[in-house]
Amino acid sequence: MSDLALPHIARLHAYTPGMQPGEEGWVKLNTNECPYPPSPRVAEALRNEIGSDGARLRLYPNPKSDPLRHAVARHHGLSAANVCIGNGSDDILNLLVRCFCGPASAAGFTWPSYSLYPVLVGIQDGAVELVEFSRSMELPVDRIARSKARIFFLTSPNAPTGVGFGTDDVARAARAFPGILVVDEAYAPFAAANAVELVQRHERLVVVRTFSKAYALAGMRVGYALASAGVIDLIDRVRDSYNVGRLAQVAAEAALADPAYYSSVIARICSTRDRFIAGLKGTRGWFTYPSQANFVFTEPRTREGESGAAVAKALWEFLHSRRVLVRHFPSSPLTAPFLRISVGTDDEMRVLNQELDEWQKAPQLATRQ
Amino acid sequence: MSDLALPHIARLHAYTPGMQPGEEGWVKLNTNECPYPPSPRVAEALRNEIGSDGARLRLYPNPKSDPLRHAVARHHGLSAANVCIGNGSDDILNLLVRCFCGPASAAGFTWPSYSLYPVLVGIQDGAVELVEFSRSMELPVDRIARSKARIFFLTSPNAPTGVGFGTDDVARAARAFPGILVVDEAYAPFAAANAVELVQRHERLVVVRTFSKAYALAGMRVGYALASAGVIDLIDRVRDSYNVGRLAQVAAEAALADPAYYSSVIARICSTRDRFIAGLKGTRGWFTYPSQANFVFTEPRTREGESGAAVAKALWEFLHSRRVLVRHFPSSPLTAPFLRISVGTDDEMRVLNQELDEWQKAPQLATRQ
Repeated sequence: MSDLALPHIARLHAYTPGMQPGEEGWVKLNTNECPYPPSPRVAEALRNEIGSDGARLRLYPNPKSDPLRHAVARHHGLSAANVCIGNGSDDILNLLVRCFCGPASAAGFTWPSYSLYPVLVGIQDGAVELVEFSRSMELPVDRIARSKARIFFLTSPNAPTGVGFGTDDVARAARAFPGILVVDEAYAPFAAANAVELVQRHERLVVVRTFSKAYALAGMRVGYALASAGVIDLIDRVRDSYNVGRLAQVAAEAALADPAYYSSVIARICSTRDRFIAGLKGTRGWFTYPSQANFVFTEPRTREGESGAAVAKALWEFLHSRRVLVRHFPSSPLTAPFLRISVGTDDEMRVLNQELDEWQKAPQLATRQ
Repeated sequence: MSDLALPHIARLHAYTPGMQPGEEGWVKLNTNECPYPPSPRVAEALRNEIGSDGARLRLYPNPKSDPLRHAVARHHGLSAANVCIGNGSDDILNLLVRCFCGPASAAGFTWPSYSLYPVLVGIQDGAVELVEFSRSMELPVDRIARSKARIFFLTSPNAPTGVGFGTDDVARAARAFPGILVVDEAYAPFAAANAVELVQRHERLVVVRTFSKAYALAGMRVGYALASAGVIDLIDRVRDSYNVGRLAQVAAEAALADPAYYSSVIARICSTRDRFIAGLKGTRGWFTYPSQANFVFTEPRTREGESGAAVAKALWEFLHSRRVLVRHFPSSPLTAPFLRISVGTDDEMRVLNQELDEWQKAPQLATRQ
């Protein structure tokens, strides 16, 4: 078949999503899902839409997700013309790549960051402009500004490090970079700052959000873009006309209508996160980036003080054997010595900490695995 | 913004979906939805997945929709390696365009057919090879076989005409055409024949199906491809890793588990369709294509015997003013004199027939609108 496929597709490697085990019994800290259920209003709204016999499901959804666009706009103090809804924020990222990136029109991104970007650019046969972080993970604003990219993806807070960037730095990048600056804010509800206030001032700035993390709706696939009407119009041309189903639209709208519930969920996750980080740094002495997200990026050390890619891999394998799932990104020297651990419930973090204790008791064994 | 967008995107016209009215009170015969609710098992399965608090929705869906792939494979007597699930069949069509079509690698399709194809090819900046039907709407097998396209989309039964093609003709096209032949079978459950049996024999043949029409799940966005493992592997590389949400997967699986319900729904729709066509041709004397789908393509005539694009447009406007929605495709001379009318319930068809009677009583008025 490969001789019929476009050459760049025949060469393509698909994105590898985190493992989604089919069976129960795992402590699942690998894909940054919310450990708490969505607002009770979501289940209620879904039951209403389904009704007794699901009759409404026979009809196509609102093609533009209009009621949800309006709800998102109100939530952020913007107009509906500044909003586009996607089948997850990955849909939005893909549409942006299709609008602005091609063989002669590069997409840029910092590295390490969300590992989907290079896959989306690869599917588009697009050129790439990498801006590599140093170990400090400080935002290289000047290098972004000088990038030859037509569109630049900036993950803030960054994944997989969790490091957040100040609004001033993002604004500086938006002013200086002459292309489309996409601030991928999947984790912004857990952060001290975000770039939403910049949308009205910068015609070329796009903020991307998701309902998968803070809103506990990863299973429903809803994300959105906030941008100038000009950028939204372009995304809409490329978007599938029914990209978001009825129940997904209803679920997201119900979630947005319960900010009190989500404030409390987010506060709880942030407090669990900060206690977990304090333990990693204080008790274990592991280097750990300050996290503004619902996950933690930490550099495991054996009892003997060894760290590095092999140590991280060994711990990943140990945890996997204990049915605890976390994530390891071996492909970059900046990420390979680390593990990314989603913030779960306090109970889940207790189980994880016990397993980390176990592993530290027998590190030689683990690294030889 | 257009100066930053890729040139072909800046020029692009979006696909125009049929009108989806937000309020009640319309007789909606414009987007070929099923007039009956989905199987009761669908609502039940959705309620089970949502549970009391929607807790499962916080978790990502199965990335490959594996249980649904297996169910679809069983349904068609194929293996799961021959199945890919999409966010509606439009997702599958888009992925196929991305795999096989580009500026130097044309996509072909018959014309008139599904008006999304040229939009998908336009988004991809792809070359186009049109094979035009004549008014007979017979399948031009030889011209498809000689087409220079790398991938060819054949809608069977065709939209918007409803004309079905024999499996022998499709097989002949599959043997003779050297590229990827996509048989878009959105309406095949209403037809006497389909091309599924050809999938195992032709490595380059893809059958595309949807849950939006016969399965009464347009609101859930689920479709699928049946093809050789080689083609499925390519689609999977380009597919978003979580393209189908949890509830969509669950709904489609529940629908597939109730073939008896759907056989009876389909039989009812076909019998309403055939009665409706008999009335159009017999009583009204309107030329109407034989339909193998859940819609009817008919050429309205005024009392004076006039037909043509202006007559069809006038009837569309008359029906719209009476809150009856049908579809008019003015862009091709082969479709402009016609209206496409979805088959609704018997009650809906009665209302429609009354309005057609009204219109025929005052045709001069209508054509002057």
